Amino acid sequence: MRNIKLTLEYDGTHFNGWQWQPKDRTVQDELQMSIQKILKEEVNVIGSGRTDAGVHALGQVANFHTEASITTFKMKAALNGTLAKDVRVLSVEEVPESFHSRYDAKRRQYHYTISKIEKAVGRDYYFFFRHKTDISLMYEASRYLIGTHDFQSFCQSGSEVDHHMCTVEYIALNETDDLIRLEIISNRFLHNMVRIITGTLLDVGTGKTDPSQVNKILDAKDRKKAGPTVPAKGLCLFQVDY
Amino acid sequence: MRNIKLTLEYDGTHFNGWQWQPKDRTVQDELQMSIQKILKEEVNVIGSGRTDAGVHALGQVANFHTEASITTFKMKAALNGTLAKDVRVLSVEEVPESFHSRYDAKRRQYHYTISKIEKAVGRDYYFFFRHKTDISLMYEASRYLIGTHDFQSFCQSGSEVDHHMCTVEYIALNETDDLIRLEIISNRFLHNMVRIITGTLLDVGTGKTDPSQVNKILDAKDRKKAGPTVPAKGLCLFQVDY
Repeated sequence: MRNIKLTLEYDGTHFNGWQWQPKDRTVQDELQMSIQKILKEEVNVIGSGRTDAGVHALGQVANFHTEASITTFKMKAALNGTLAKDVRVLSVEEVPESFHSRYDAKRRQYHYTISKIEKAVGRDYYFFFRHKTDISLMYEASRYLIGTHDFQSFCQSGSEVDHHMCTVEYIALNETDDLIRLEIISNRFLHNMVRIITGTLLDVGTGKTDPSQVNKILDAKDRKKAGPTVPAKGLCLFQVDY
Repeated sequence: MRNIKLTLEYDGTHFNGWQWQPKDRTVQDELQMSIQKILKEEVNVIGSGRTDAGVHALGQVANFHTEASITTFKMKAALNGTLAKDVRVLSVEEVPESFHSRYDAKRRQYHYTISKIEKAVGRDYYFFFRHKTDISLMYEASRYLIGTHDFQSFCQSGSEVDHHMCTVEYIALNETDDLIRLEIISNRFLHNMVRIITGTLLDVGTGKTDPSQVNKILDAKDRKKAGPTVPAKGLCLFQVDY
């Protein structure tokens, strides 16, 4: 049995997220349908993780097993010829049979983009935030999140997970005249974790929350203590490392 | 009578261009309707120039005359509250009564963006060009276009204009790993001029046309001698100077 690893880019605007759903348009479903159309064989596409409706990906990873003998080169061309233009296959590789895109992922990197100006061009790719924001305060607050912590306060309530421990390796905040971008790397992410972290750091940036408060929010293990969940469209799954 | 100058950004993807048309969605029409709704007065919105369907703008300029006493500050907020999200008003200024956004424009700057990779994110904002391109050859060819010339070869046939003389002040070509961007400044642009120049320079970049041939194409004053008209979506009206 061959095991095929795909690296994917998608524009999440017109998808109801990654995960298959009975009625809505999802990336997993369209990808699986396209592969089956090309290979004339049933396959089960496994993603590195779900992304929500409106969330984009520049480096989502998925894999599937197949008996088909098609080359990876032809597979890539056939998939990009079959898929809608809002999903692109960046690479197709043959990997060891044991490779699992979800279980084997060592770390994931997400970017969250905030625009300080309400823009027309690219408006599906960033969240417009009109308030004056001090990113040095946001940076100071973000330091409390680095390391291994229980991130329950930064997880959507009602999420079914065994535990909320995550190891955040890296948070960077970059600012230009128009944009603020948060880059975050963790071994795993809980549901809405990046969007709640960003919303909380924006509360710090506007002076609503003191930077040191973020440590207390972590300790509280209570979603209600953290800031708002910022919109999906600013979020992008940038890279998954194995 | 007050004269109001607007600087506008728009995403041209879902517009059938700038200019009013009886049935289709156009920027001029929606802008005019929004202004009339706010001012409860008939106005005539004059643009610095037309843009075609699918062409974007980061700095289109328009003006209109009004008797209304609304402040420019309130006008901007009201317009951005009324317009669809794919048009944004960047600034509203009161200008001398004689100011005319088309006749008074001294130079216009357009950008054309080419992606070397077929991308999902931002796919409405660049033209995917799959062939290997040498931008040093494109640059060499572009030097023949600088200065005052008859640009009939780079104008869509059948365009109704008095003459084809344009003074191209500046052409820059920038390349990154993924993108090639052409920036061009001229006192005026003929219909499809940037798209035909870009198509011709891409023919040079792939080796199909010799750089020196561009001088002969200019001299021919014949649209058929120039390269293809590349797609609208890569084009953006970047700035208009007065």
